[in-house]
Amino acid sequence: MKRSERIACMSIFLLENPSRQKQLSYFTKRYRASKASISEDLNIIDDMYQAEGIGYLKRTAGPSGGVQYIPELSHERSKQVIDELCERLSDTERILPGGYLYMTDVLGESNLVREIGRMFASKFSNRNIDVVMTVETKGISLAYAVAFYLNVPVVVVRRDPRVTEGSSVSINYVSGASRKIQTMVLSKRSLKDGDQVCIIDDFMKAGGTINGMVSLVKEFNANPAAIAVLAEADDLEEDRVIEDYVSLVKLAEVDQKGEEVFIQSGNYLEK
Amino acid sequence: MKRSERIACMSIFLLENPSRQKQLSYFTKRYRASKASISEDLNIIDDMYQAEGIGYLKRTAGPSGGVQYIPELSHERSKQVIDELCERLSDTERILPGGYLYMTDVLGESNLVREIGRMFASKFSNRNIDVVMTVETKGISLAYAVAFYLNVPVVVVRRDPRVTEGSSVSINYVSGASRKIQTMVLSKRSLKDGDQVCIIDDFMKAGGTINGMVSLVKEFNANPAAIAVLAEADDLEEDRVIEDYVSLVKLAEVDQKGEEVFIQSGNYLEK
Repeated sequence: MKRSERIACMSIFLLENPSRQKQLSYFTKRYRASKASISEDLNIIDDMYQAEGIGYLKRTAGPSGGVQYIPELSHERSKQVIDELCERLSDTERILPGGYLYMTDVLGESNLVREIGRMFASKFSNRNIDVVMTVETKGISLAYAVAFYLNVPVVVVRRDPRVTEGSSVSINYVSGASRKIQTMVLSKRSLKDGDQVCIIDDFMKAGGTINGMVSLVKEFNANPAAIAVLAEADDLEEDRVIEDYVSLVKLAEVDQKGEEVFIQSGNYLEK
Repeated sequence: MKRSERIACMSIFLLENPSRQKQLSYFTKRYRASKASISEDLNIIDDMYQAEGIGYLKRTAGPSGGVQYIPELSHERSKQVIDELCERLSDTERILPGGYLYMTDVLGESNLVREIGRMFASKFSNRNIDVVMTVETKGISLAYAVAFYLNVPVVVVRRDPRVTEGSSVSINYVSGASRKIQTMVLSKRSLKDGDQVCIIDDFMKAGGTINGMVSLVKEFNANPAAIAVLAEADDLEEDRVIEDYVSLVKLAEVDQKGEEVFIQSGNYLEK
């Protein structure tokens, strides 16, 4: 195998297995190359990832040491995603009765969702996340994208118990905006004591749903270690119960009369 | 930029943008290289993808021609995934009251889900799929994985209408196993006339839910062009209303008394 092919193979392998440590010996055996050659190849790949703005290689020395790809989308690439989101969501065609905004199509784009997942994973790569949690339905795709880049499983909280989930833990919580009492259910097998949990959702108004997930995490003696949402509504900040979170866009106002939508960046780039 | 780096960069770019045509001029400009050099690089990348068993490069000639990565997981790698699924699902710890099988943890593994998505995309890459459809909740992650590799959007059918989806089309259907009448709802903006739709779900018993999705697709004057499920139940085949589909595993029987689970391969490798 030529050197150029080996570098290409390794850069693909690492990219397809983010946040997963591989020992150097794995590569020396697979490509029948010396440790020095593989190490040099890894330098090239590291430079290339950084130049592309998609992350870097983290290397650890010693007998159990190795290499892993840590996703870290560059500021420039992150800003592009946010700007594109702001522009697309500002379309007045999206205004629904009641001042809601249609975002389902944007959440349906697997490529965009994947890149947003990589953005959130970039922010949380040093928080030792064990599991990504979301509540059905719209946040699920985002949660999987984040989990892929952090190399952890996903658990999906449901609105009502299902026989196929086995025994479960349920909590009641107060929905922030409507002040209604709602229920959340999570399979008992989903979380372990002490798990570091990353909570993901598509949209946050007053934060009642996210707060419900935080309570559920605590019910399992696990820790809500990170919270991220695609969009947050701006007009309810006084009532907000969640304070430490990351958002990509902020929905300032949906002006149904003037037929305008005011969208701005969330706090992602400042965090 | 050295040749080895250029090859690595291009192989990453193509892999991260599956089923998406890029003109050769994009690469000649980006890497300031001749058409002949880029073309030679693409030959190497094509060989490498095929050797790794992840697919191949499809090239089209002419002024509007270009290159795209077509995902096609090799028979060997596909068989590995299916064997692993069979083994893991055979664990008797998975038996739930009523003879159900706990699969939620397997569906929670983003890496595995992604690879299954690539398998389904491999099967359907020549069917001109325009959109991937699933019904909430458990099939969503699979649907996104398939859609990523086919480079098309996802639409999620819901059990009840939501204000945030805008106006919608709903149908009633008979659930195959329980013979209950159920409802499915899909936002009107989701599908267009003539769309080729790939239907994905996690589990199929008699096929009532999938059949409901087929009816919904037809309601939009679109075509149900492909159907795939992770697991199918074997014991109900006589009643089955869906015939042309792909499955990875077949749940032959859950023997609650003997505490055994009988799992075998689905029809994927034969299709």
